[in-house]
Amino acid sequence: PEPAAFENVALFFTDIYGFKELANRSSPRQIVALLNRMYIAFDEVIARFPDLYKVETVMDSFMVCSGLSGNTQKSRQDCIRDATIAAECAIQLLDAVEAIDMSDQLVEKLNLRIGIQCGPVLAGVIGTKMPHYCLFGDTVNTASRMCSTNQALRIQVSEAMYDLLKNEYILEERGTIAVKGKGDMKTFFLLGRKDKVSEPNH
Amino acid sequence: PEPAAFENVALFFTDIYGFKELANRSSPRQIVALLNRMYIAFDEVIARFPDLYKVETVMDSFMVCSGLSGNTQKSRQDCIRDATIAAECAIQLLDAVEAIDMSDQLVEKLNLRIGIQCGPVLAGVIGTKMPHYCLFGDTVNTASRMCSTNQALRIQVSEAMYDLLKNEYILEERGTIAVKGKGDMKTFFLLGRKDKVSEPNH
Ligand SMILES: [Mn+2]
Ligand SMILES: [Mn+2]
Repeated sequence: PEPAAFENVALFFTDIYGFKELANRSSPRQIVALLNRMYIAFDEVIARFPDLYKVETVMDSFMVCSGLSGNTQKSRQDCIRDATIAAECAIQLLDAVEAIDMSDQLVEKLNLRIGIQCGPVLAGVIGTKMPHYCLFGDTVNTASRMCSTNQALRIQVSEAMYDLLKNEYILEERGTIAVKGKGDMKTFFLLGRKDKVSEPNH
Repeated sequence: PEPAAFENVALFFTDIYGFKELANRSSPRQIVALLNRMYIAFDEVIARFPDLYKVETVMDSFMVCSGLSGNTQKSRQDCIRDATIAAECAIQLLDAVEAIDMSDQLVEKLNLRIGIQCGPVLAGVIGTKMPHYCLFGDTVNTASRMCSTNQALRIQVSEAMYDLLKNEYILEERGTIAVKGKGDMKTFFLLGRKDKVSEPNH
């Protein structure tokens, strides 16, 4: 397919805080078993959302995107919908790590953290032997920063995401993070749906 | 296959210095065409080395490894051989970027940089839907640092690599870089083979 520009998507990265150190201390069998359990659990959550696309996985990190549809023009309602799909999946991924069997592992819990950004992306298929779909642009880089500057067991989102989610979700101001080329960005923790009677995420 | 520990491999990362900025300024067609040209060129170089395995590609970054054979015990000669294969491939990749067609691009040249480390790795197959081979451990992290702290159009290697290559290759001391959990590491630029009458890499 031709490279494409998407006007608005909601994109998130997941990461396991402390993964490198855990891998260094674990046996091959331990770390491979853990990652496989994580992949099975995460794939099952992502599959609940037909409009969600798992773009890429690199070791302990997933990149997932909502909004890669054919529509070139997005209404505010479309943007809210994509943001909501990404937010719901992120919340359910945090639930899913609680249920992963860690009995053979050196730690009790996988310190999952997630960062979400919305905005335009460029997309294209790269490679000839094993072609894969790649996303580019500021939205991707910022989502990555939302994740890499995040605390364990938290979902961190941008102000643009806050704006789309604030009607239906509870968010808490986190502070500002420095994003190269964009200066300081205000960020928020996503805590859960407003209408859900449940424990907060953290 | 069962997860495995390899006593010694030579592993390198490649990266395009300034890629994010270039992708932000380019059209989707431009950046996708460029990456595809790079992948074709790099795959062709890597294919010249039957013992070299391309482990992973993430956008503009390749991870390539020599030494993932069945042998559990490696002699110094085996280690030199793996280091040499990685070094030769890296040198030829720097040559290959000179030949990539940039006529439709915003820059004249792909600022390839490469970082190489040798040492033990853990390996395993991750994922059930699209299983892929993953490498873990300090050697992987250090090779990544060798790359990410490197200058454009340079091959940066560790002192352990220097020790294996110094008989047949010209290396120049670069200085020290800070590697998390390991303190300061002395690093070297790999310039070329001693017996080759050719221009230096840079
Ligand atoms: Mn990570
Ligand atoms: Mn890069």
